[in-house]
Amino acid sequence: MISIPDSEYKERIKKVQERMVKDDIDLLVVYSSECESANVRYLADFWPTFDFAGVLVPREGEAALLTGGPESLEFARKFSRIKWIMTHPGFVETSAPDWLTKHETRNFSTIIPEVCGGLKIRKVGIAGANIFPHVLYVDLQQAIGEAKIVNADHVMFDVRKIKSYMEIKLLEEAYSITEEAMKAAVDYAEVGKTEQQITAEALATMYKLGAEGTSYSIWVASGPNTALSLYRPTNRAINENELVQLTFGAKYQGYCGNMCRGMVFGELPESVRRLVDIAIESEEKVIEMVAPGVKGIEVYKMFSKILAKYGLEEGALYGPAHGTGLQECEGPWLDAKSDWPLQPNMVFNIDIWLSDGKSGIRYEDGIVITDRGVKELTSWRRELIRK
Amino acid sequence: MISIPDSEYKERIKKVQERMVKDDIDLLVVYSSECESANVRYLADFWPTFDFAGVLVPREGEAALLTGGPESLEFARKFSRIKWIMTHPGFVETSAPDWLTKHETRNFSTIIPEVCGGLKIRKVGIAGANIFPHVLYVDLQQAIGEAKIVNADHVMFDVRKIKSYMEIKLLEEAYSITEEAMKAAVDYAEVGKTEQQITAEALATMYKLGAEGTSYSIWVASGPNTALSLYRPTNRAINENELVQLTFGAKYQGYCGNMCRGMVFGELPESVRRLVDIAIESEEKVIEMVAPGVKGIEVYKMFSKILAKYGLEEGALYGPAHGTGLQECEGPWLDAKSDWPLQPNMVFNIDIWLSDGKSGIRYEDGIVITDRGVKELTSWRRELIRK
Repeated sequence: MISIPDSEYKERIKKVQERMVKDDIDLLVVYSSECESANVRYLADFWPTFDFAGVLVPREGEAALLTGGPESLEFARKFSRIKWIMTHPGFVETSAPDWLTKHETRNFSTIIPEVCGGLKIRKVGIAGANIFPHVLYVDLQQAIGEAKIVNADHVMFDVRKIKSYMEIKLLEEAYSITEEAMKAAVDYAEVGKTEQQITAEALATMYKLGAEGTSYSIWVASGPNTALSLYRPTNRAINENELVQLTFGAKYQGYCGNMCRGMVFGELPESVRRLVDIAIESEEKVIEMVAPGVKGIEVYKMFSKILAKYGLEEGALYGPAHGTGLQECEGPWLDAKSDWPLQPNMVFNIDIWLSDGKSGIRYEDGIVITDRGVKELTSWRRELIRK
Repeated sequence: MISIPDSEYKERIKKVQERMVKDDIDLLVVYSSECESANVRYLADFWPTFDFAGVLVPREGEAALLTGGPESLEFARKFSRIKWIMTHPGFVETSAPDWLTKHETRNFSTIIPEVCGGLKIRKVGIAGANIFPHVLYVDLQQAIGEAKIVNADHVMFDVRKIKSYMEIKLLEEAYSITEEAMKAAVDYAEVGKTEQQITAEALATMYKLGAEGTSYSIWVASGPNTALSLYRPTNRAINENELVQLTFGAKYQGYCGNMCRGMVFGELPESVRRLVDIAIESEEKVIEMVAPGVKGIEVYKMFSKILAKYGLEEGALYGPAHGTGLQECEGPWLDAKSDWPLQPNMVFNIDIWLSDGKSGIRYEDGIVITDRGVKELTSWRRELIRK
């Protein structure tokens, strides 16, 4: 099994520290939960269960992993690439037991001086700012006194946006598993099967091929349910002559695959068929256009022109692609603000969502920007799948 | 398919409001993420994906659901039992797109007066206090001025701890799916299969039987890996004459099943076999003892005596059972502090974890406290499973 070497994790910490110096950040506090695990996983290959996790990165020197109770401490010792591990009560699960064993647990006031050594702390950055708990913030403020706390999501974002050779290898595997799950689900689907049953077939295939989980809560939507751009599969049975949306992503060693297709048994109503055709045309034109040096905003404008040509300006929710990696949607988006050039080893999901309010369709595939153009990570049946 | 009726969700809000009156709480702010979804799901049957969710419960009157972007708004309109839904930027996903569509989004300063009407707000409670983001806390404090903010996790805890008839029906189904997954995994397992492959068999079975997900990230651990009480399955192949831990829980309509067993191909070393025997003896004695009126601490003391009899005082991490429902471990724990009587319609996982530092084993099954005694939700092969 391929696996990212420990040395790459050490390089990641270094890159973060270089980025911190640029912004004059003395200490980065990275926070993750099980469902928002990307930042801590990027630095430590650890993602928590029940409890929570964090990484403290000082401007210079060694980084430390933080987690909750004694079970997580042992768990992290096994899986974390960062081997300096401490526990903090603010990282303990919601329903903490009354531990029978004694374990050392400390707050930021004792942890931070140890991690930062003699370093003077004037500015502390938080990565995972939108989920950083207030209870931890209070303890952090207490520990650092007069120092300033700033949002430092951009530090992790900047370091994560260009993927390494090994990251791309793992992403390729995640997309490959996802594509096999798509094939299995299409093969399994028939009129009368429920959204839940077809989703289950995809899930079973992913796990049997070595997925550790899904990139997000995946789904099949059918008929009127396709109008929703976020969904959960229900026990609705699929019918002839209606749209079926297949929205699948497998996670492999933390890295997220994703792939979306439309399917029909019989024929689609003309208006729905048109929506599907426009989604496929948009996706193909976006894939044709993306290449190193091309600005994100140019791709966005081209997409907008297609929408305008068909009078579908209100049909999309967002730009035609977003970055992906340890999070299925981790940015950057290609949108009206993307005045920056695409670079080799950026990985995107081309994500075309179109809806007329009654039906909706998403065509989505992964691509890697290469030195010369683009490598597609999934491409199977980028068409209306007829059965 | 059985499903909890809307009327029960209305009753839940009422119960929360009655509990709030006792503590003189004027407004309850409930916060959930996808992996800590229980509180919002309990009140609204909604659990977020990508974005986050909350419920505002005023002391009197209607409750409102909060979520992030326009996609979640439509998603919630379909799935939430609370039909008054608003969006707040603090509930938006980590990598928010630049939305092409306009949607109304508001902060607490305009949302709270609308939800609370003329109600004077002196005390605001937060449920989900350990995960409530600082950015939301700041906005909340701004909105309520001089009013006090308190931890109100106990409000939701108190209301959730006695299960309704329908909740028990859904839990029965979750445990039944879990038990079938256990049987399938045991049947599939053989020497040379990896931890990951056996876990995948359990997952495939769960999804095919209608599970919506797992109660937590489930695992198989083998040999030396069994020493860890939290784990992720790896590609380690299982061997003859070593312990294999099977730790599975299926989630059905939000409700969590759970079941843990030990398995061996051949014979266990004597010291490991002893640990397994003591775990099974402990679990059986706990199940014999639990009944309405029995105090949690009495069960804990009995368990401690068993540990002492075998010199295993250091072998356990926590008391012998914990509450379960919309969260696999949601409290209350049966431990040294449980000076309260068990009541009918409380649901527990009897959770016996024992380790000697080199090997570890967990035997776990679900039970419902009934009017007269106990109903077991899983019981298949509560023994060392030999293959």
